[in-house]
Amino acid sequence: MYPYVLLVLFVLLLAEISIKNLATAKEQNSNDIHLEAPHLSDRTESNRPPIKPSTNVPQKKIKQKISNTKNKINPCKGTYVRTNGTTCGLKEIMIGRCYEYQFVKYPSATNQHNIKNCTALYETFESAVRYKSHCNMNMSTYKDYFDLALAGVHVINRAMFWSGTYAVTHAYSGSGLNYITLEDTLAAAMVNGLVWCGNENHTEGFDFNSCPNNCKDNRWADLAFWGLASKTFAQLAAGEIFVILNGSQLHGRSAFRNNSYFSDFELPNFRRHGEYRVTKINALVLHSPDEKVMERCGEKSLRLLEDLITNNGFEYACKDDPEELILIMCGNQWEARECQIARRVLRQAWDTKLYGTSNSNQKSLSLLMIFYFFLIKIVVFNNKV
Amino acid sequence: MYPYVLLVLFVLLLAEISIKNLATAKEQNSNDIHLEAPHLSDRTESNRPPIKPSTNVPQKKIKQKISNTKNKINPCKGTYVRTNGTTCGLKEIMIGRCYEYQFVKYPSATNQHNIKNCTALYETFESAVRYKSHCNMNMSTYKDYFDLALAGVHVINRAMFWSGTYAVTHAYSGSGLNYITLEDTLAAAMVNGLVWCGNENHTEGFDFNSCPNNCKDNRWADLAFWGLASKTFAQLAAGEIFVILNGSQLHGRSAFRNNSYFSDFELPNFRRHGEYRVTKINALVLHSPDEKVMERCGEKSLRLLEDLITNNGFEYACKDDPEELILIMCGNQWEARECQIARRVLRQAWDTKLYGTSNSNQKSLSLLMIFYFFLIKIVVFNNKV
Ligand SMILES: N=c1c2ncn3c2ncn1[C@@H]1O[C@H](COP(=O)(O)OP(=O)(O)OC[C@H]2O[C@@H]3[C@H](O)[C@@H]2O)[C@@H](O)[C@H]1O
Repeated sequence: MYPYVLLVLFVLLLAEISIKNLATAKEQNSNDIHLEAPHLSDRTESNRPPIKPSTNVPQKKIKQKISNTKNKINPCKGTYVRTNGTTCGLKEIMIGRCYEYQFVKYPSATNQHNIKNCTALYETFESAVRYKSHCNMNMSTYKDYFDLALAGVHVINRAMFWSGTYAVTHAYSGSGLNYITLEDTLAAAMVNGLVWCGNENHTEGFDFNSCPNNCKDNRWADLAFWGLASKTFAQLAAGEIFVILNGSQLHGRSAFRNNSYFSDFELPNFRRHGEYRVTKINALVLHSPDEKVMERCGEKSLRLLEDLITNNGFEYACKDDPEELILIMCGNQWEARECQIARRVLRQAWDTKLYGTSNSNQKSLSLLMIFYFFLIKIVVFNNKV
Repeated sequence: MYPYVLLVLFVLLLAEISIKNLATAKEQNSNDIHLEAPHLSDRTESNRPPIKPSTNVPQKKIKQKISNTKNKINPCKGTYVRTNGTTCGLKEIMIGRCYEYQFVKYPSATNQHNIKNCTALYETFESAVRYKSHCNMNMSTYKDYFDLALAGVHVINRAMFWSGTYAVTHAYSGSGLNYITLEDTLAAAMVNGLVWCGNENHTEGFDFNSCPNNCKDNRWADLAFWGLASKTFAQLAAGEIFVILNGSQLHGRSAFRNNSYFSDFELPNFRRHGEYRVTKINALVLHSPDEKVMERCGEKSLRLLEDLITNNGFEYACKDDPEELILIMCGNQWEARECQIARRVLRQAWDTKLYGTSNSNQKSLSLLMIFYFFLIKIVVFNNKV
């Protein structure tokens, strides 16, 4: 044991000097290619309207940064003006995405038995919203649309839910290759990222100038689409499912919170009985690089979540920061302090791969790396004993 | 110097034992959540037809795994059968993508002056191909389409080219957020991943049953679209540009090779004069985890590339495996041997973040990590002196 203890002491001596070196370290072999850091979008949310508490909180005024002319001229025709109303080309985009979903993205899942008529699907959607006043919507407005889009879908395995972690979750789920998020289902894929609202007075039946999503007397109107979408998706999830939460939420938000789609529309709708019931809920809690850890598994709102889940008879597991997801976060924020060491280690590994065994200097470096892990093990082992 | 030499010797002693441990190491705090490894598509190529040498090589027979009925029934209507012909919904998908490109992906770049009529754009495309025999196509077939799609685009900065690295390049370019690839331009985005070919006998004017892309007497036919697309894109690139090459190519392929789109349509078309000329070409050479290093910067075909580029008066730089891209590759192949160490280091960094300063054991572990980098520096320094 003694040599290890001595080594650790030696390390402590060197650390003081070394920390400074590390902090100011520049790339050793400075190559004159400047690369942009890759970055995902900063989205932690999709463009679903936020769920507001049902009490009448004074509403924030909609920002008028972008044009919001009330002249009822269609800003998609003639001279285009950017607005916060219905997306120009809503119909064409939805129909195009429907074809693409069936014949390009998932052609092998598409066969003569479950092929959907994209025009009919769009028309079902349209008839729910066109010429209708947005604030009259409710949770059954889009029922026919979801029924049609989901006809033939009886169960969704590897379902993945998210709250406050939009970009990372979707980078990880790999467009349905690894896991299925709501946005990987036809009904949601057709409108994801789009904006729309009906208008009974406009000649086109849609309001292209402004979609406030802000109905004083009917909170359900705003939830009509994404609330039902979330509910329907949750009802189809089966087996072991995943939810990716944000343990670094700012502004006093918690990782699991009421008035989130996950708490209000998904968790209450998981199947509890039968062959296709949800058996286990895995929470994955992410802590962004360079941001504070606000909650960890088993703490604060995550304890509430655990109780809620186990009381409902589901098995529960929670993991802070799985490596797979740390990597995606670091891939996105190379500059973050916590990601620097991995960056150096990878550089090292690739230099060994590139100049490998022929270069004895590189060889001893990788032996040092092995030595380093060996030391970690000893320390961990000593601690356990 | 002596203490370091002693340390290295000590390391060599421990290494033997340690290697075995490392190889069989299991996750220490085994958490019972099983996660899928994230993975990009395995694409190194997009779906462009390969460029064939003009000599008449015996053609490989098209695989008949998927239905290729010659009965000229439209397999997109009624009972859908998967074929290797024109993508079902080609028109709808193209028009939808055009709207999405302008009003969802790049709304801020879209203004009343450069807004494109999506239907007109599709019709220009269609009139070039519909009812036409595929083998009569040539490099001017799609000229009108590109002229229309690119009207108003005078220069493309941060252009990124690729050869044999489709998936990594596109993960990195971030849909045009970091860099602009051909597939991030409207004309190419509208058809990327789709298949089409005209048929003068079919009632629809497209062949939905089979698109061989394999014209005995006219190799240009196969290149009509993507050849012109690549050429046009290259002509618009300006300033410093990037090309991501594959230094682990299999089957005797080289990183830079003739009969690639990059060599035949892009490199010869970079602007050499004027304000918007290409000033510098940066080659980034990738070596996939767990695969052999076939070529490095300055070797074999990359030497040819360098000569070609400098002879043409461009500045040239080459970098093997930038860290940003290693991370993307490792994010995609967690299991690869070369990625394991980074995985452990990141785990370590996040454990420190999570249980941080309050846990002295963790603290000494991160000091060890600093020590490890300190040692690397010493060795590198010694070597230089
Ligand atoms: N956009 C495409 C494209 N789309 C589909 N394809 C494309 N090839 C080139 N390009 C352009 O040429 C360059 C790459 O072509 P290439 O060097 O042949 O790559 P490679 O990766 O060697 O081959 C690309 C293969 O992918 C298909 C073709 O079938 C081609 O056979 C890129 O920079 C891109 O701008």
